[in-house]
Amino acid sequence: MTPLATTSRTRLTRLRERARTDRADLYTVLDAGLVCHVGLVVDGAPVVIPTGYGRLDDTLYLHGSTGAGWLRRAAGAPVCATVTHLDGIVYARSVFHHSMNYRSAVIHGTLRTVTDLGEVDAALAAIVEHLAPGSWEHARRPDRRELAATVVLALDLAEASVKVRTGPPGDDESDITQGGRWAGVLPLTTVFGEPVPCPTLEPAATTPPHVRGRVAPA
Amino acid sequence: MTPLATTSRTRLTRLRERARTDRADLYTVLDAGLVCHVGLVVDGAPVVIPTGYGRLDDTLYLHGSTGAGWLRRAAGAPVCATVTHLDGIVYARSVFHHSMNYRSAVIHGTLRTVTDLGEVDAALAAIVEHLAPGSWEHARRPDRRELAATVVLALDLAEASVKVRTGPPGDDESDITQGGRWAGVLPLTTVFGEPVPCPTLEPAATTPPHVRGRVAPA
Repeated sequence: MTPLATTSRTRLTRLRERARTDRADLYTVLDAGLVCHVGLVVDGAPVVIPTGYGRLDDTLYLHGSTGAGWLRRAAGAPVCATVTHLDGIVYARSVFHHSMNYRSAVIHGTLRTVTDLGEVDAALAAIVEHLAPGSWEHARRPDRRELAATVVLALDLAEASVKVRTGPPGDDESDITQGGRWAGVLPLTTVFGEPVPCPTLEPAATTPPHVRGRVAPA
Repeated sequence: MTPLATTSRTRLTRLRERARTDRADLYTVLDAGLVCHVGLVVDGAPVVIPTGYGRLDDTLYLHGSTGAGWLRRAAGAPVCATVTHLDGIVYARSVFHHSMNYRSAVIHGTLRTVTDLGEVDAALAAIVEHLAPGSWEHARRPDRRELAATVVLALDLAEASVKVRTGPPGDDESDITQGGRWAGVLPLTTVFGEPVPCPTLEPAATTPPHVRGRVAPA
């Protein structure tokens, strides 16, 4: 895999030790996320929209309704897509050194409208399997009418920066020596709860393994 | 409380039933979050940065190092700050009706650099207490040098939209009637894990209640 290109936009201006330039790190951050925040410029002002996504190799795919204004505006325009995982609250002896542990990926590029039907199909499968692994097989696939109501957009993973902070707080030596104040990390994780069946489901229906399997054992 | 103003930017173009226009709904979404995604325009292209925040009444506060490029660029410029909570994966009988349950707030405005020392102090307290309740009291407050290295920015909560999706999937009647496919919601929650003390902490130090109290009983 080629490393991530460093451009004026992806070079970190400070805390460079948090930068990751391996493409694998980008993939890891993207594949562990569910929502990205897409920024576009509308009438000179930024707009940031949360949305799902999927990844196939070096392409990030977004989708939405043909009725969604932001998707129509986004095609062909410069965008920025950011995925962030918050892993912990960093408590320091000083307020100043309080921080967060996190992994984030910031991707810059131009959205391309996907028109090739094979690529549309592959992109939708990637998006659905990212959100709900197993659903592309289990659920009914999109019909012609549904496909006509769906826009698929592609973003090349060419220009991106990845930042990671891990570990304990970086307190000043004088605060450490003085003692008396707690410091450490409060980890944060996202967990799946007990599945809630649709009220219109047959009462005897059991939760299939592709859903049940995501829930951690109690 | 005044309802949120509806402007061309905050009016939803589709799925209007997901819109919330009470200011209280905006506060609830903001107060439950830890990270916002701030969009700015740099050389005509959008940039989306994850960052912490705090709220005091009708003002959202951001802060950062004077060395952070994006903060310098953001002052006085139009920005968009978005906070998103992902509450569940919505499994439908059809791929098309797969969705997410979520709460999101999108705020549009212009960032003002806070220079009044009283407001800087109140804003930093709000940001720290939002991230780590109790730390403003427990930890060492910022000294003159640390304050000089910190930029505080304010965003009026004047123009904002709030969207909420809850509940089961909205499957087509024909897919419900046909049966045989699971549908429902897989809830998602963010939980705090066991606190990890800083390696430089005295071994006998106990985790204080303002940290310990955030962890759900096992």
